[in-house]
Amino acid sequence: MSRFWSKTVKNLTPYVPGEQPKLSQLIKLNTNESPYGPSPKALAAIASANTDGLRLYPDPNSDSLKQAIAKVHGLKSDQVFVGNGSDEVLAHAFLGLLKHEEPILFPDITYSFYPVYCNLYDISFKNIPLDEDFAINTKDYIRKNGGIIFPNPNAPTGRALPLSDIKALLESNTESVVVIDEAYVDYGTESAATLVNQFPNLLVTHTLSKSYALAGLRVGYAVGHPDLIEALERVKNSFNSYPIDKLAMAGAVAAIEDQEYLHSISKAVIQTRETLVKDLSQLGFETIPSQANFVFTKHPSKDAAAIATALREKHIIVRHFKMARIDQYLRITIGTDEQCASLVNALKEIV
Amino acid sequence: MSRFWSKTVKNLTPYVPGEQPKLSQLIKLNTNESPYGPSPKALAAIASANTDGLRLYPDPNSDSLKQAIAKVHGLKSDQVFVGNGSDEVLAHAFLGLLKHEEPILFPDITYSFYPVYCNLYDISFKNIPLDEDFAINTKDYIRKNGGIIFPNPNAPTGRALPLSDIKALLESNTESVVVIDEAYVDYGTESAATLVNQFPNLLVTHTLSKSYALAGLRVGYAVGHPDLIEALERVKNSFNSYPIDKLAMAGAVAAIEDQEYLHSISKAVIQTRETLVKDLSQLGFETIPSQANFVFTKHPSKDAAAIATALREKHIIVRHFKMARIDQYLRITIGTDEQCASLVNALKEIV
Repeated sequence: MSRFWSKTVKNLTPYVPGEQPKLSQLIKLNTNESPYGPSPKALAAIASANTDGLRLYPDPNSDSLKQAIAKVHGLKSDQVFVGNGSDEVLAHAFLGLLKHEEPILFPDITYSFYPVYCNLYDISFKNIPLDEDFAINTKDYIRKNGGIIFPNPNAPTGRALPLSDIKALLESNTESVVVIDEAYVDYGTESAATLVNQFPNLLVTHTLSKSYALAGLRVGYAVGHPDLIEALERVKNSFNSYPIDKLAMAGAVAAIEDQEYLHSISKAVIQTRETLVKDLSQLGFETIPSQANFVFTKHPSKDAAAIATALREKHIIVRHFKMARIDQYLRITIGTDEQCASLVNALKEIV
Repeated sequence: MSRFWSKTVKNLTPYVPGEQPKLSQLIKLNTNESPYGPSPKALAAIASANTDGLRLYPDPNSDSLKQAIAKVHGLKSDQVFVGNGSDEVLAHAFLGLLKHEEPILFPDITYSFYPVYCNLYDISFKNIPLDEDFAINTKDYIRKNGGIIFPNPNAPTGRALPLSDIKALLESNTESVVVIDEAYVDYGTESAATLVNQFPNLLVTHTLSKSYALAGLRVGYAVGHPDLIEALERVKNSFNSYPIDKLAMAGAVAAIEDQEYLHSISKAVIQTRETLVKDLSQLGFETIPSQANFVFTKHPSKDAAAIATALREKHIIVRHFKMARIDQYLRITIGTDEQCASLVNALKEIV
């Protein structure tokens, strides 16, 4: 604490991301990265952009990237916003679209960055508890609010809502913005991006960090009504004119245009997930049905933190949250078949 | 305007960056980019990082980059903060270190992003007029304030203050943070980074977008007392855990380690600047003494906006600001010798 800090800084409780260990030789199943590399076309596009042209600023509007995203979703460029990872996109959405008189609503168990944004921008919020099966019940959100946000599928549970539930919520909630955070949508969930033309208060966010295997490149985006996008652009242009660098732009465009590759590696992850869930079940683990590239699982008798520690001794890292309701669960990223087999073998010895 | 916008968004007046034209065949002297490419070592480092490893998140703390920066300045890593361009670094400094009860102070003619940040974060400010020679008089800043910020050399004037003036200001102003924005410091100005160990309220910001010729990569940094750096880290970790992507990290480390290249291209720009100032003088232009990679110049009889338009017809872009006191000036980025010769020839025809 320093007398030079602003009040805002003094009151912050920053987000703590999952560990990025500098050791190699680890099986890293803690931060929901893809076990497969990005599209070879993305790497080739980056190589082509890696020239003396880096002396020039990037396009501040990222037009080519917006066009590629718009095309994939059957939308127009002015329905697309891009940022330095979906975290930056979400930050701008909190300040620009979710800061109102009434508290915003999000689940009690969800992406733990949401309350951090609220703290940063002085936004009041109310947690809506997941039901006893750790499911979001959208009817619980039908109340006065300044906005609604949740991931679909939810994190860290992996549980998804059908599109019909999202649509019903939007039909009931027309006076505030609803943000559906679809970081994990490509692993088996129907995207709400198809509802964007129908609901002017719907914002859907995506990231290239998971299914596109480009966590290292920092690109995320949002789609929504042009008025919502304009709000995000106004915040962005009051903060940083050029958040997407030239290499990220080139790589992201090529990755998004390569939908075939996206589908092939997403499908592989889904297959591995189904096998892992069965294997965990045979070891006694109870796993929440997952539509994500991770599973949320607990053992009926063995303490979750103890399992995480024992796994780490065997050079396998998973994520454990010391939080009410979920401190007996582990969030395990889906790795390759080989990595998941190693995990299962290690767990056999531990439990 | 939309009913879904927050009050913050409704009140914003976003920054307008210089044009990034999509046409080639232009002589682009409008956004102070380097006429030379980045260090070949930076391009090689980026190529080495362009692998399947992009599937993993970058180091959220950017340790290797902080170490490289600390070494160049003879500081420690905990005295260094890094961000997605110095604009992001400045944004976090405004929210974390310059938002207090008293208004902050900056020149009436300066980087036009400063009032935009104040607007975004609801920070009160007071403009201190430059003197009639467009110089900053640091004595004018000895008054109650919530913080002080100005570029050295100043933009868009290019005029620099000696380090002794900065030091005297810091000796008088001990109760609030002083930010010296050194975006253009490598073209002939003494850096205040050497004063960081002496003054716990000094923050010095740098960018890789100008002298390092990496505007396309989006990397900037700040050096200061660890308490000031901690404030920036707290804001950053409440906003976006990973603002520096893996490619930017690799390229920036290599560029910073190649000080020899930095000095060689900075020296070339300084030499071209001296020639251009002489050539402009022969055409009747009056140029403010510049220590930057641009000059700020006016013609005694020909309207600045008209000159800018005429240059554009000849495929040369310079920057003109429609603002009080400076609407008869043009800001011209220093290009290569050939580009500046073309500019001078075009101006000969115009004036």
